[in-house]
Amino acid sequence: MDLRIGVIGTGAIGRDHIQRINGITSGAKVSAISDINSEAGKLLASEIGATFFAEGEDLIASDIVDAVLVTSWDPTHEKYVLEAIKHNKYVFCEKPLAVEIDGCRRIVDAEIKAGKKLVQVGFMRRYDRGYEELKAMVDSKELGEVLMLHCAHRNPSVDESYDTPMAVENTAVHEIDVLRWLLQEDYVSAEVKLPKQTSYTHENLHDPQFIILETESGIQIDIEVFVNCQFGYDIKCAVVCEKGEVALSDPSYTTLKTKGKDSTKVSSDWKDRFVTAYDREFQLWVDSVRAENITGPSAWDGYVASVTTTACSKARDTGTKVEITLEACPDFYKK
Amino acid sequence: MDLRIGVIGTGAIGRDHIQRINGITSGAKVSAISDINSEAGKLLASEIGATFFAEGEDLIASDIVDAVLVTSWDPTHEKYVLEAIKHNKYVFCEKPLAVEIDGCRRIVDAEIKAGKKLVQVGFMRRYDRGYEELKAMVDSKELGEVLMLHCAHRNPSVDESYDTPMAVENTAVHEIDVLRWLLQEDYVSAEVKLPKQTSYTHENLHDPQFIILETESGIQIDIEVFVNCQFGYDIKCAVVCEKGEVALSDPSYTTLKTKGKDSTKVSSDWKDRFVTAYDREFQLWVDSVRAENITGPSAWDGYVASVTTTACSKARDTGTKVEITLEACPDFYKK
Amino acid sequence: MDLRIGVIGTGAIGRDHIQRINGITSGAKVSAISDINSEAGKLLASEIGATFFAEGEDLIASDIVDAVLVTSWDPTHEKYVLEAIKHNKYVFCEKPLAVEIDGCRRIVDAEIKAGKKLVQVGFMRRYDRGYEELKAMVDSKELGEVLMLHCAHRNPSVDESYDTPMAVENTAVHEIDVLRWLLQEDYVSAEVKLPKQTSYTHENLHDPQFIILETESGIQIDIEVFVNCQFGYDIKCAVVCEKGEVALSDPSYTTLKTKGKDSTKVSSDWKDRFVTAYDREFQLWVDSVRAENITGPSAWDGYVASVTTTACSKARDTGTKVEITLEACPDFYKK
Amino acid sequence: MDLRIGVIGTGAIGRDHIQRINGITSGAKVSAISDINSEAGKLLASEIGATFFAEGEDLIASDIVDAVLVTSWDPTHEKYVLEAIKHNKYVFCEKPLAVEIDGCRRIVDAEIKAGKKLVQVGFMRRYDRGYEELKAMVDSKELGEVLMLHCAHRNPSVDESYDTPMAVENTAVHEIDVLRWLLQEDYVSAEVKLPKQTSYTHENLHDPQFIILETESGIQIDIEVFVNCQFGYDIKCAVVCEKGEVALSDPSYTTLKTKGKDSTKVSSDWKDRFVTAYDREFQLWVDSVRAENITGPSAWDGYVASVTTTACSKARDTGTKVEITLEACPDFYKK
Repeated sequence: MDLRIGVIGTGAIGRDHIQRINGITSGAKVSAISDINSEAGKLLASEIGATFFAEGEDLIASDIVDAVLVTSWDPTHEKYVLEAIKHNKYVFCEKPLAVEIDGCRRIVDAEIKAGKKLVQVGFMRRYDRGYEELKAMVDSKELGEVLMLHCAHRNPSVDESYDTPMAVENTAVHEIDVLRWLLQEDYVSAEVKLPKQTSYTHENLHDPQFIILETESGIQIDIEVFVNCQFGYDIKCAVVCEKGEVALSDPSYTTLKTKGKDSTKVSSDWKDRFVTAYDREFQLWVDSVRAENITGPSAWDGYVASVTTTACSKARDTGTKVEITLEACPDFYKK
Repeated sequence: MDLRIGVIGTGAIGRDHIQRINGITSGAKVSAISDINSEAGKLLASEIGATFFAEGEDLIASDIVDAVLVTSWDPTHEKYVLEAIKHNKYVFCEKPLAVEIDGCRRIVDAEIKAGKKLVQVGFMRRYDRGYEELKAMVDSKELGEVLMLHCAHRNPSVDESYDTPMAVENTAVHEIDVLRWLLQEDYVSAEVKLPKQTSYTHENLHDPQFIILETESGIQIDIEVFVNCQFGYDIKCAVVCEKGEVALSDPSYTTLKTKGKDSTKVSSDWKDRFVTAYDREFQLWVDSVRAENITGPSAWDGYVASVTTTACSKARDTGTKVEITLEACPDFYKK
Repeated sequence: MDLRIGVIGTGAIGRDHIQRINGITSGAKVSAISDINSEAGKLLASEIGATFFAEGEDLIASDIVDAVLVTSWDPTHEKYVLEAIKHNKYVFCEKPLAVEIDGCRRIVDAEIKAGKKLVQVGFMRRYDRGYEELKAMVDSKELGEVLMLHCAHRNPSVDESYDTPMAVENTAVHEIDVLRWLLQEDYVSAEVKLPKQTSYTHENLHDPQFIILETESGIQIDIEVFVNCQFGYDIKCAVVCEKGEVALSDPSYTTLKTKGKDSTKVSSDWKDRFVTAYDREFQLWVDSVRAENITGPSAWDGYVASVTTTACSKARDTGTKVEITLEACPDFYKK
Repeated sequence: MDLRIGVIGTGAIGRDHIQRINGITSGAKVSAISDINSEAGKLLASEIGATFFAEGEDLIASDIVDAVLVTSWDPTHEKYVLEAIKHNKYVFCEKPLAVEIDGCRRIVDAEIKAGKKLVQVGFMRRYDRGYEELKAMVDSKELGEVLMLHCAHRNPSVDESYDTPMAVENTAVHEIDVLRWLLQEDYVSAEVKLPKQTSYTHENLHDPQFIILETESGIQIDIEVFVNCQFGYDIKCAVVCEKGEVALSDPSYTTLKTKGKDSTKVSSDWKDRFVTAYDREFQLWVDSVRAENITGPSAWDGYVASVTTTACSKARDTGTKVEITLEACPDFYKK
């Protein structure tokens, strides 16, 4: 029997995931959808043979929904996740888990109180084959201890709605989660530098930005965030260890020699670069929900990401190095 | 409603596909299996919740089977495919379609007579992203006409059961199918050269071999087949065109600098290299069967592969260039 | 008539340059040498057919010496360079020009007073084909303005005599000169961070270090200095511009596939990596001296390097961001 | 005292070498030149401070000439080389040594009779760092025995004077020499195939061509010669061994990411690709002449190249596989 998933929020990312679940994922089907735009929601529901719910809460409560996918407007994430926990249903929430640290904390507390891990946050990079290879190398200690990480997160361009804080909150947040997972260490400080700007940016955005994080053991991480780089979607992560360096590469399937150049393609956008990671993320989430044992990014991971992005934002606004302090990870979230 | 697939033959490749269908493919489930080894077959059937049939013919006839997957012993492929056609059921047959040209022809004739395309042959390279990029480049004519192809098909090692003819029939047959698809041209001649042998080969195998094919328009293809290359599974395909060269690369996800070397991994085996192609092949087959419009490698493609491998074998045995003549492709198989 | 060069200081680097001048460089010969070790110096002189001088000052004054090469102990550089200026002779001085800012300044003042450019400092990276290609790309503005540079300077290992300050003074000084030449901008601030240390370092050396420089126009430069990286000699310089990134690569002449890896060699040391740059540096210096028009790194460049390394050292010692202020470049040194 | 070189023939390649000797090579100067065009020759002589000789024979005989460089019209090579041998002078002759096998043989016989190795042929690839690395790997036996070589020799374009035979005689001749040196084996057969032609060729040239050579031990070599490939000057040499593959790469000094591509430059022409090899070839020739012990490509190598190209031409004209038979290498030419 397929897992019946209810999807709240059917914008671009929601529709993408609906297609993924119905067309590529084994063992799951979208049984219900909800959207603030009733008309569009109903139309989509009829197209894919799902039931439409005007209210997300009703979808969550419905007995035709085994698990919930939250892809709605960011400020609504918290309430839907809390509602799912209340109904003891598994819930996959696209980042951010909540828009403020406190909201994330409320989810953590509710989940601990419910006594069962139900929440997974949509940090898909952990499912990318490149990051998995990096982690296997780090874990093997073949290169000794990790000392530094040099990272970049580059988008070809962003529109006017993307402002300075989003470089941290929407963009670097992916590095913030995946590098903490890679290193299995928390961050202790954050700094943000503002280099010379590209003329391709707009009034409300300082682009590029340069973030420096330090971990508990002293590993130093630098992350260039450059969201109007023009040339493509380019993700770098070089892990400098005592005996060598292992670095992410943008996989290429063909090489082309023409007009005096020997070239490979640069990914055009995040979908192109991470489509396989998204597919695996959902297949493994569905499998783990059916096995009643979810293992992906937890509510605690979502909370820590929120604490860290908040520190980065403060560092950027004050031009200072900001300490990051976290209470101890609750036993509930330790493997 | 999921497509219910009956699998005939549950050896290594059969079990691999069963896992794929049940664990990764959307919209399909294995409902029935058959194997000459009843005990093992029954055990597997109970494990995956499928019905066991002692006879493949009974599986094909059963109304709990919507479509058939043939992964049995090569000499039995023909009869099961013919039986599936008789029952008007879609059938996916791992290569070879039949062990002799005549057997392939009988399948072609039966399918034409049945009046519906039901047969797909397991040439999975057409679903590899690298070959797809090569084809897009060739089709675009951006580099002008194709003039030559330089290819290699290398396995780390083979056991004693792998003999000289298998270099063509089991190994180069993948190139024979995918390059014909890539170029949309048939072959007109074949030659096989026998270079200096590796000391890692065994008595019954001349390794490496070097195949030269010529197409209708004069494109020359060379294929090195080297199945004891020791270092990994390595597939090359460089398409030399009038204005440039586009070549397959072995995608790498990380690069490693240590001990004086900057390296990437070479694939270890065909599963490692083509796992994504297999996954896509099955998803698209399931989708196309459900849409009643299969588009993958046809019985005619299986027949042409057989004619071509037979010519290569003759060329190798006689040390001469052998002409390849084919009747015109029946309208039935033209798009 | 060949240029007759007198060499002061015949340690490892001195002997290397003597071989280069006598064996590879066109239009020059070593006519005289001087070294504090008279015995070794005399022996070498007789081997290469040169005249030995016990005192560097006498060598400089001799009429068998057209131009002087200073490769002696660092603290003696200043006096020999000043002496050469006094005798109106061209002088090539290995870095540093002088051990303190004041010494560099005295040389600058003496040269200006002498009224003729006579001094060249041994910053050979400007002669590396890779850096030349970077500069051509920057100068072309094809990628728009430069925004950031990400650099690394890695040595396989250093011995106990190499201490913390040397990471800046002996190692990063190469980047400090070549990046200023690349960007044609001076630095305005320096910071040094001290990441987690490698266990391969020793008591007197913090390794690695991470330097951040800012230029007049706001370009931000980060330089990882890691001198016990174990795996090879590895130089990185990625120039991030508004429309793309151009980066140095370690040229490789062959690729090797064996044992599951596809690899190229990493340079083993600076000689291996920059030998061609050294050869070109000397050929062009000899040519330019003969043409009476030297164009390489000037005394002013040596002075600016000294000001910058001093600022970096202060930044490291104080853990703060240190401003770098320079008087205006004298007209004498402007092209 | 510099080696005084007399240059016969001052066309493009002659002038290039004159610049190299006078501007880059240590220990040599052009003292004399000769050219059939007296006016241009005299002008050049006065520019570089050399003596002009109307007759090459007079230049060879002159006591201001220590060694001779023959870069004249191909059909005159033989007589000048023989003349140099007669005068017991070292002579460097650009390929071909002579236009016919017999001419090469006459030089071999004359040199043996003279009793001293005086002749070097201008096969510069042996001095390329890439080929040297290939040879070191082959010689080390680290990858076991060599089994096959896959090569390509591609030029961006050729003019109408370049006809079908030149693909072998002027182009593949470089591979013919360097691969024999690499493998230390002679060839036993040659075949030439004529694939589909590029529309960028002209009436008198079949382009591309595909040459297959076999060596004494059975190593099979394929060489694609494609002289209107449009995209650059591209040299490939992949050495397939029992345990791995080592292949030439076109060294790149920078990588560029822009407009959706990650690219390196392809060499534009043979000068760009092999300039360092030419420089080293001349430096080592000068050094070896001064040491009275030349070690580069010998007259015998020139003779064997001629025998092999003649066999290839016959193979191409007859469409058959042609055996190559050589008398034993005279002891005189064995190391």
